[in-house]
Amino acid sequence: MTVLESLIKRLSRLPGVGRKSAARIAYYLLSSDDSFNEELAEDIATLKRRLRPCSVCGSFTEFDPCSICTDPGRDRSVVCVVERAQDVTILETSDEYRGLYHVLGGVISPIDGIGPNELRLGSLVERVRSEGVREVILATNPTVEGDTTALYVVKLLEPLGVTVSRLALGLPVGGDLEYADRLTLARSLRARTPIAND
Amino acid sequence: MTVLESLIKRLSRLPGVGRKSAARIAYYLLSSDDSFNEELAEDIATLKRRLRPCSVCGSFTEFDPCSICTDPGRDRSVVCVVERAQDVTILETSDEYRGLYHVLGGVISPIDGIGPNELRLGSLVERVRSEGVREVILATNPTVEGDTTALYVVKLLEPLGVTVSRLALGLPVGGDLEYADRLTLARSLRARTPIAND
Repeated sequence: MTVLESLIKRLSRLPGVGRKSAARIAYYLLSSDDSFNEELAEDIATLKRRLRPCSVCGSFTEFDPCSICTDPGRDRSVVCVVERAQDVTILETSDEYRGLYHVLGGVISPIDGIGPNELRLGSLVERVRSEGVREVILATNPTVEGDTTALYVVKLLEPLGVTVSRLALGLPVGGDLEYADRLTLARSLRARTPIAND
Repeated sequence: MTVLESLIKRLSRLPGVGRKSAARIAYYLLSSDDSFNEELAEDIATLKRRLRPCSVCGSFTEFDPCSICTDPGRDRSVVCVVERAQDVTILETSDEYRGLYHVLGGVISPIDGIGPNELRLGSLVERVRSEGVREVILATNPTVEGDTTALYVVKLLEPLGVTVSRLALGLPVGGDLEYADRLTLARSLRARTPIAND
Protein backbone atom coordinates (compact mmCIF):
# COMPACT_ATOMS: atom_id res chain seq x y z
CA MET A 1 0.00 0.00 0.00
CA THR A 2 1.41 3.41 -0.95
CA VAL A 3 1.43 6.33 1.48
CA LEU A 4 -1.42 7.83 -0.57
CA GLU A 5 -3.61 4.74 -0.21
CA SER A 6 -2.76 4.41 3.47
CA LEU A 7 -3.53 8.10 4.10
CA ILE A 8 -6.88 7.85 2.27
CA LYS A 9 -7.76 4.72 4.25
CA ARG A 10 -6.90 6.38 7.58
CA LEU A 11 -8.68 9.63 6.73
CA SER A 12 -11.84 7.71 5.83
CA ARG A 13 -11.96 6.34 9.39
CA LEU A 14 -12.54 9.88 10.69
CA PRO A 15 -16.16 10.77 11.53
CA GLY A 16 -18.05 12.34 8.62
CA VAL A 17 -15.28 11.55 6.13
CA GLY A 18 -16.15 8.99 3.45
CA ARG A 19 -13.75 7.50 0.90
CA LYS A 20 -14.35 10.27 -1.62
CA SER A 21 -13.81 13.09 0.89
CA ALA A 22 -10.71 11.27 2.14
CA ALA A 23 -9.29 11.21 -1.39
CA ARG A 24 -10.10 14.92 -1.85
CA ILE A 25 -8.38 15.74 1.43
CA ALA A 26 -5.33 13.64 0.53
CA TYR A 27 -4.91 15.42 -2.81
CA TYR A 28 -5.46 18.77 -1.11
CA LEU A 29 -2.59 17.92 1.26
CA LEU A 30 -0.44 16.96 -1.74
CA SER A 31 -0.83 20.47 -3.12
CA SER A 32 -0.74 22.47 0.12
CA ASP A 33 2.23 24.11 1.86
CA ASP A 34 4.82 21.80 3.42
CA SER A 35 4.52 23.84 6.62
CA PHE A 36 0.73 23.37 6.81
CA ASN A 37 1.10 19.58 6.54
CA GLU A 38 3.90 19.51 9.09
CA GLU A 39 1.97 21.61 11.61
CA LEU A 40 -1.21 19.57 11.10
CA ALA A 41 0.77 16.34 11.57
CA GLU A 42 2.43 17.77 14.69
CA ASP A 43 -0.95 18.74 16.18
CA ILE A 44 -2.36 15.26 15.52
CA ALA A 45 0.71 13.45 16.84
CA THR A 46 0.97 15.46 20.07
CA LEU A 47 -2.75 16.04 20.74
CA LYS A 48 -3.34 13.30 23.28
CA ARG A 49 -0.03 13.90 25.04
CA ARG A 50 -0.65 17.63 25.46
CA LEU A 51 -4.28 17.56 26.56
CA ARG A 52 -5.67 16.29 29.86
CA PRO A 53 -9.07 16.62 31.54
CA CYS A 54 -9.52 19.85 33.52
CA SER A 55 -9.67 18.85 37.20
CA VAL A 56 -12.56 21.28 37.77
CA CYS A 57 -14.94 21.02 34.81
CA GLY A 58 -13.70 17.87 33.06
CA SER A 59 -13.19 19.35 29.59
CA PHE A 60 -9.88 18.90 27.76
CA THR A 61 -7.13 21.41 28.46
CA GLU A 62 -3.39 21.97 28.12
CA PHE A 63 -3.14 23.79 31.47
CA ASP A 64 -5.12 22.68 34.50
CA PRO A 65 -7.57 24.22 35.44
CA CYS A 66 -8.74 25.15 31.94
CA SER A 67 -9.00 28.64 30.47
CA ILE A 68 -12.78 28.81 31.05
CA CYS A 69 -12.58 27.74 34.71
CA THR A 70 -9.86 30.35 35.38
CA ASP A 71 -11.40 33.19 33.30
CA PRO A 72 -12.20 36.02 35.76
CA GLY A 73 -14.70 37.45 33.25
CA ARG A 74 -17.06 34.48 33.49
CA ASP A 75 -20.11 34.23 35.71
CA ARG A 76 -19.12 31.71 38.40
CA SER A 77 -22.67 31.42 39.74
CA VAL A 78 -23.98 29.51 36.69
CA VAL A 79 -22.83 26.01 35.71
CA CYS A 80 -23.87 24.35 32.47
CA VAL A 81 -23.85 20.53 32.66
CA VAL A 82 -22.97 18.71 29.42
CA GLU A 83 -22.47 15.09 28.41
CA ARG A 84 -19.11 15.26 26.68
CA ALA A 85 -16.12 17.60 26.55
CA GLN A 86 -16.85 18.47 22.90
CA ASP A 87 -20.24 19.88 23.95
CA VAL A 88 -18.32 22.71 25.66
CA THR A 89 -16.70 23.64 22.32
CA ILE A 90 -20.12 23.48 20.63
CA LEU A 91 -21.90 25.66 23.22
CA GLU A 92 -19.04 28.18 23.17
CA THR A 93 -19.69 28.78 19.46
CA SER A 94 -23.10 30.28 20.36
CA ASP A 95 -21.35 33.27 22.01
CA GLU A 96 -24.36 33.38 24.31
CA TYR A 97 -23.18 31.74 27.49
CA ARG A 98 -20.78 33.36 29.96
CA GLY A 99 -20.94 30.90 32.87
CA LEU A 100 -18.91 27.80 33.72
CA TYR A 101 -19.25 24.18 32.57
CA HIS A 102 -19.33 20.72 34.08
CA VAL A 103 -18.68 17.67 31.88
CA LEU A 104 -20.44 14.49 33.06
CA GLY A 105 -18.37 12.24 30.82
CA GLY A 106 -21.42 10.42 29.47
CA VAL A 107 -25.09 9.75 30.20
CA ILE A 108 -26.93 7.18 32.27
CA SER A 109 -27.43 4.25 29.91
CA PRO A 110 -28.10 0.88 31.58
CA ILE A 111 -27.84 -0.91 28.22
CA ASP A 112 -24.21 0.27 27.93
CA GLY A 113 -23.58 -0.47 31.61
CA ILE A 114 -23.25 3.22 32.48
CA GLY A 115 -24.88 4.18 35.78
CA PRO A 116 -24.64 7.37 37.86
CA ASN A 117 -21.38 6.14 39.43
CA GLU A 118 -19.60 6.28 36.07
CA LEU A 119 -20.42 9.98 35.68
CA ARG A 120 -18.78 13.04 37.26
CA LEU A 121 -21.75 13.69 39.56
CA GLY A 122 -20.00 13.80 42.95
CA SER A 123 -17.79 16.68 41.85
CA LEU A 124 -20.85 18.50 40.45
CA VAL A 125 -22.65 18.32 43.81
CA GLU A 126 -19.45 19.44 45.52
CA ARG A 127 -19.07 22.45 43.18
CA VAL A 128 -22.70 23.50 43.63
CA ARG A 129 -22.45 23.13 47.40
CA SER A 130 -19.20 25.00 47.99
CA GLU A 131 -18.76 27.49 45.16
CA GLY A 132 -21.80 29.75 45.36
CA VAL A 133 -23.58 28.32 42.33
CA ARG A 134 -27.06 29.86 41.86
CA GLU A 135 -28.18 28.08 38.70
CA VAL A 136 -27.41 24.78 36.98
CA ILE A 137 -28.35 24.53 33.29
CA LEU A 138 -28.82 20.96 32.09
CA ALA A 139 -27.56 20.74 28.52
CA THR A 140 -27.53 16.98 28.02
CA ASN A 141 -28.83 15.95 24.59
CA PRO A 142 -32.64 15.80 24.08
CA THR A 143 -32.57 11.98 23.88
CA VAL A 144 -33.99 9.32 26.20
CA GLU A 145 -30.60 8.92 27.91
CA GLY A 146 -29.99 12.67 28.06
CA ASP A 147 -33.44 13.28 29.56
CA THR A 148 -33.01 10.45 32.09
CA THR A 149 -29.67 11.87 33.15
CA ALA A 150 -31.11 15.38 33.42
CA LEU A 151 -33.91 14.09 35.68
CA TYR A 152 -31.36 12.27 37.83
CA VAL A 153 -29.32 15.46 38.25
CA VAL A 154 -32.49 17.41 39.16
CA LYS A 155 -33.19 14.95 42.00
CA LEU A 156 -29.57 15.03 43.08
CA LEU A 157 -29.45 18.83 43.33
CA GLU A 158 -32.92 19.24 44.88
CA PRO A 159 -31.67 19.30 48.51
CA LEU A 160 -29.19 22.07 47.66
CA GLY A 161 -31.86 24.63 46.77
CA VAL A 162 -30.22 25.67 43.51
CA THR A 163 -32.22 26.72 40.41
CA VAL A 164 -32.05 23.97 37.78
CA SER A 165 -33.04 24.63 34.17
CA ARG A 166 -32.98 22.68 30.91
CA LEU A 167 -32.17 23.89 27.37
CA ALA A 168 -35.36 24.85 25.51
CA LEU A 169 -36.82 22.38 23.02
CA GLY A 170 -38.48 23.61 19.82
CA LEU A 171 -37.96 24.32 16.16
CA PRO A 172 -34.39 24.92 15.03
CA VAL A 173 -33.80 28.49 13.81
CA GLY A 174 -34.08 28.59 10.02
CA GLY A 175 -35.92 25.26 10.11
CA ASP A 176 -39.08 24.34 8.24
CA LEU A 177 -42.31 23.07 9.88
CA GLU A 178 -42.51 20.46 7.13
CA TYR A 179 -39.27 18.81 8.27
CA ALA A 180 -39.87 18.98 12.02
CA ASP A 181 -40.75 15.68 13.64
CA ARG A 182 -44.00 15.15 15.56
CA LEU A 183 -42.37 15.30 19.02
CA THR A 184 -40.50 18.51 18.29
CA LEU A 185 -43.68 20.11 16.95
CA ALA A 186 -45.57 19.04 20.09
CA ARG A 187 -42.85 20.45 22.35
CA SER A 188 -42.65 23.75 20.46
CA LEU A 189 -46.45 24.14 20.74
CA ARG A 190 -46.48 23.33 24.43
CA ALA A 191 -43.60 25.71 25.16
CA ARG A 192 -44.84 28.50 22.86
CA THR A 193 -43.49 31.90 23.83
CA PRO A 194 -45.67 35.05 24.07
CA ILE A 195 -44.80 37.75 21.55
CA ALA A 196 -43.86 41.05 23.19
CA ASN A 197 -46.34 43.70 22.10
CA ASP A 198 -44.65 47.07 22.35
CA MET B 1 -4.35 29.07 21.14
CA THR B 2 -4.40 25.54 22.57
CA VAL B 3 -3.42 22.52 20.48
CA LEU B 4 -7.13 21.64 20.31
CA GLU B 5 -8.11 25.04 18.90
CA SER B 6 -5.18 25.00 16.49
CA LEU B 7 -6.04 21.47 15.32
CA ILE B 8 -9.70 22.39 14.78
CA LYS B 9 -8.66 25.50 12.85
CA ARG B 10 -6.28 23.54 10.63
CA LEU B 11 -8.74 20.68 10.04
CA SER B 12 -11.43 23.16 8.98
CA ARG B 13 -9.14 24.32 6.14
CA LEU B 14 -9.43 20.87 4.56
CA PRO B 15 -11.90 20.55 1.67
CA GLY B 16 -15.39 19.47 2.75
CA VAL B 17 -14.58 19.93 6.45
CA GLY B 18 -16.44 22.75 8.20
CA ARG B 19 -15.84 23.96 11.75
CA LYS B 20 -18.30 21.47 13.24
CA SER B 21 -16.86 18.47 11.42
CA ALA B 22 -13.37 19.68 12.37
CA ALA B 23 -14.36 19.69 16.06
CA ARG B 24 -15.90 16.21 15.72
CA ILE B 25 -12.72 14.90 14.08
CA ALA B 26 -10.51 16.53 16.75
CA TYR B 27 -12.49 14.89 19.57
CA TYR B 28 -12.47 11.59 17.68
CA LEU B 29 -8.66 11.82 17.57
CA LEU B 30 -8.63 12.57 21.30
CA SER B 31 -10.36 9.26 21.98
CA SER B 32 -8.69 7.09 19.34
CA ASP B 33 -5.60 4.87 19.66
CA ASP B 34 -2.25 6.61 20.08
CA SER B 35 -0.91 4.47 17.24
CA PHE B 36 -3.68 5.57 14.84
CA ASN B 37 -2.90 9.23 15.50
CA GLU B 38 0.84 8.70 15.14
CA GLU B 39 0.47 6.82 11.85
CA LEU B 40 -1.96 9.38 10.46
CA ALA B 41 0.42 12.21 11.46
CA GLU B 42 3.33 10.34 9.88
CA ASP B 43 1.43 9.88 6.61
CA ILE B 44 0.52 13.58 6.50
CA ALA B 45 4.03 14.76 7.37
CA THR B 46 5.80 12.55 4.84
CA LEU B 47 3.21 12.57 2.04
CA LYS B 48 4.74 15.24 -0.18
CA ARG B 49 8.28 13.98 0.37
CA ARG B 50 7.42 10.39 -0.56
CA LEU B 51 5.25 11.00 -3.62
CA ARG B 52 6.38 12.29 -7.02
CA PRO B 53 4.67 12.45 -10.42
CA CYS B 54 4.95 9.24 -12.45
CA SER B 55 7.22 10.03 -15.43
CA VAL B 56 4.89 8.10 -17.75
CA CYS B 57 1.29 8.93 -16.81
CA GLY B 58 1.76 11.91 -14.48
CA SER B 59 -0.20 10.57 -11.50
CA PHE B 60 1.37 10.57 -8.03
CA THR B 61 3.51 7.59 -7.07
CA GLU B 62 6.13 6.44 -4.60
CA PHE B 63 8.03 4.40 -7.22
CA ASP B 64 8.51 5.66 -10.76
CA PRO B 65 6.90 4.51 -13.06
CA CYS B 66 3.72 4.00 -11.02
CA SER B 67 2.05 0.68 -10.21
CA ILE B 68 -0.59 1.13 -12.94
CA CYS B 69 1.95 1.92 -15.68
CA THR B 70 4.03 -1.13 -14.73
CA ASP B 71 1.11 -3.55 -14.16
CA PRO B 72 1.49 -6.35 -16.75
CA GLY B 73 -2.20 -7.20 -16.34
CA ARG B 74 -3.41 -3.89 -17.78
CA ASP B 75 -4.40 -3.28 -21.38
CA ARG B 76 -1.60 -1.10 -22.78
CA SER B 77 -3.53 -0.30 -25.96
CA VAL B 78 -6.07 1.96 -24.21
CA VAL B 79 -5.16 5.27 -22.54
CA CYS B 80 -7.65 7.28 -20.47
CA VAL B 81 -6.88 11.02 -20.41
CA VAL B 82 -7.83 12.85 -17.18
CA GLU B 83 -7.44 16.39 -15.88
CA ARG B 84 -5.88 15.75 -12.49
CA ALA B 85 -4.02 12.95 -10.72
CA GLN B 86 -6.94 12.44 -8.31
CA ASP B 87 -9.19 11.54 -11.25
CA VAL B 88 -7.13 8.35 -11.62
CA THR B 89 -8.04 7.36 -8.03
CA ILE B 90 -11.69 8.19 -8.73
CA LEU B 91 -11.89 6.18 -11.99
CA GLU B 92 -10.10 3.23 -10.38
CA THR B 93 -12.96 2.96 -7.84
CA SER B 94 -15.33 2.00 -10.70
CA ASP B 95 -13.47 -1.32 -11.14
CA GLU B 96 -14.45 -1.07 -14.78
CA TYR B 97 -11.33 0.18 -16.51
CA ARG B 98 -8.26 -1.97 -17.14
CA GLY B 99 -6.23 0.32 -19.43
CA LEU B 100 -3.60 2.98 -18.70
CA TYR B 101 -3.96 6.67 -17.78
CA HIS B 102 -2.51 10.01 -18.83
CA VAL B 103 -2.81 13.01 -16.52
CA LEU B 104 -2.97 16.37 -18.34
CA GLY B 105 -2.31 18.37 -15.17
CA GLY B 106 -5.21 20.75 -15.83
CA VAL B 107 -7.51 21.97 -18.60
CA ILE B 108 -7.28 24.69 -21.22
CA SER B 109 -8.58 27.81 -19.49
CA PRO B 110 -7.54 31.15 -21.03
CA ILE B 111 -9.06 33.05 -18.08
CA ASP B 112 -6.58 31.29 -15.75
CA GLY B 113 -3.76 31.69 -18.25
CA ILE B 114 -3.61 27.95 -18.97
CA GLY B 115 -3.04 27.10 -22.60
CA PRO B 116 -2.15 23.81 -24.30
CA ASN B 117 1.54 24.37 -23.53
CA GLU B 118 0.88 24.14 -19.80
CA LEU B 119 -0.62 20.64 -20.19
CA ARG B 120 1.10 17.27 -20.62
CA LEU B 121 0.07 17.00 -24.28
CA GLY B 122 3.46 16.41 -25.93
CA SER B 123 4.03 13.27 -23.88
CA LEU B 124 0.49 12.07 -24.71
CA VAL B 125 1.14 12.36 -28.45
CA GLU B 126 4.49 10.63 -27.96
CA ARG B 127 2.88 7.73 -26.04
CA VAL B 128 0.12 7.28 -28.63
CA ARG B 129 2.63 7.39 -31.48
CA SER B 130 5.22 5.00 -30.09
CA GLU B 131 3.46 2.62 -27.72
CA GLY B 132 0.83 0.88 -29.84
CA VAL B 133 -2.16 2.74 -28.39
CA ARG B 134 -5.42 1.85 -30.19
CA GLU B 135 -7.90 3.96 -28.25
CA VAL B 136 -7.77 7.17 -26.22
CA ILE B 137 -10.69 7.78 -23.83
CA LEU B 138 -11.17 11.45 -22.96
CA ALA B 139 -12.30 11.66 -19.34
CA THR B 140 -11.95 15.40 -18.72
CA ASN B 141 -14.86 16.81 -16.72
CA PRO B 142 -18.10 17.63 -18.60
CA THR B 143 -17.52 21.39 -18.19
CA VAL B 144 -16.80 24.12 -20.73
CA GLU B 145 -13.05 23.83 -20.05
CA GLY B 146 -13.12 20.03 -19.99
CA ASP B 147 -15.01 19.93 -23.32
CA THR B 148 -12.68 22.50 -24.90
CA THR B 149 -9.67 20.49 -23.81
CA ALA B 150 -11.23 17.26 -25.09
CA LEU B 151 -11.85 18.85 -28.51
CA TYR B 152 -8.26 20.12 -28.58
CA VAL B 153 -6.95 16.60 -27.86
CA VAL B 154 -9.21 15.16 -30.60
CA LYS B 155 -7.63 17.55 -33.16
CA LEU B 156 -4.15 16.81 -31.85
CA LEU B 157 -4.55 13.03 -32.17
CA GLU B 158 -6.41 13.10 -35.53
CA PRO B 159 -3.27 12.62 -37.68
CA LEU B 160 -2.29 9.54 -35.66
CA GLY B 161 -5.33 7.49 -36.72
CA VAL B 162 -6.20 6.40 -33.17
CA THR B 163 -9.81 5.87 -31.97
CA VAL B 164 -10.79 8.70 -29.62
CA SER B 165 -13.84 8.43 -27.36
CA ARG B 166 -15.43 10.53 -24.62
CA LEU B 167 -17.13 9.39 -21.37
CA ALA B 168 -20.90 9.09 -21.87
CA LEU B 169 -23.13 11.89 -20.61
CA GLY B 170 -26.52 11.10 -19.12
CA LEU B 171 -28.47 10.53 -15.95
CA PRO B 172 -26.45 9.40 -12.93
CA VAL B 173 -27.33 5.86 -11.81
CA GLY B 174 -29.84 6.03 -8.96
CA GLY B 175 -30.68 9.61 -9.96
CA ASP B 176 -34.12 11.14 -10.35
CA LEU B 177 -35.44 12.83 -13.50
CA GLU B 178 -36.80 15.59 -11.30
CA TYR B 179 -33.33 16.62 -10.16
CA ALA B 180 -31.56 16.33 -13.51
CA ASP B 181 -30.71 19.65 -15.14
CA ARG B 182 -31.99 20.59 -18.60
CA LEU B 183 -28.67 19.97 -20.38
CA THR B 184 -28.19 16.55 -18.83
CA LEU B 185 -31.76 15.58 -19.80
CA ALA B 186 -31.14 16.76 -23.36
CA ARG B 187 -27.88 14.79 -23.60
CA SER B 188 -29.42 11.65 -22.17
CA LEU B 189 -32.30 11.85 -24.69
CA ARG B 190 -29.98 12.45 -27.61
CA ALA B 191 -27.68 9.59 -26.58
CA ARG B 192 -30.51 7.19 -25.62
CA THR B 193 -29.44 3.56 -25.79
CA PRO B 194 -31.51 0.82 -27.47
CA ILE B 195 -32.79 -1.86 -25.12
CA ALA B 196 -31.60 -5.33 -26.03
CA ASN B 197 -34.60 -7.50 -26.90
CA ASP B 198 -33.67 -11.11 -26.39
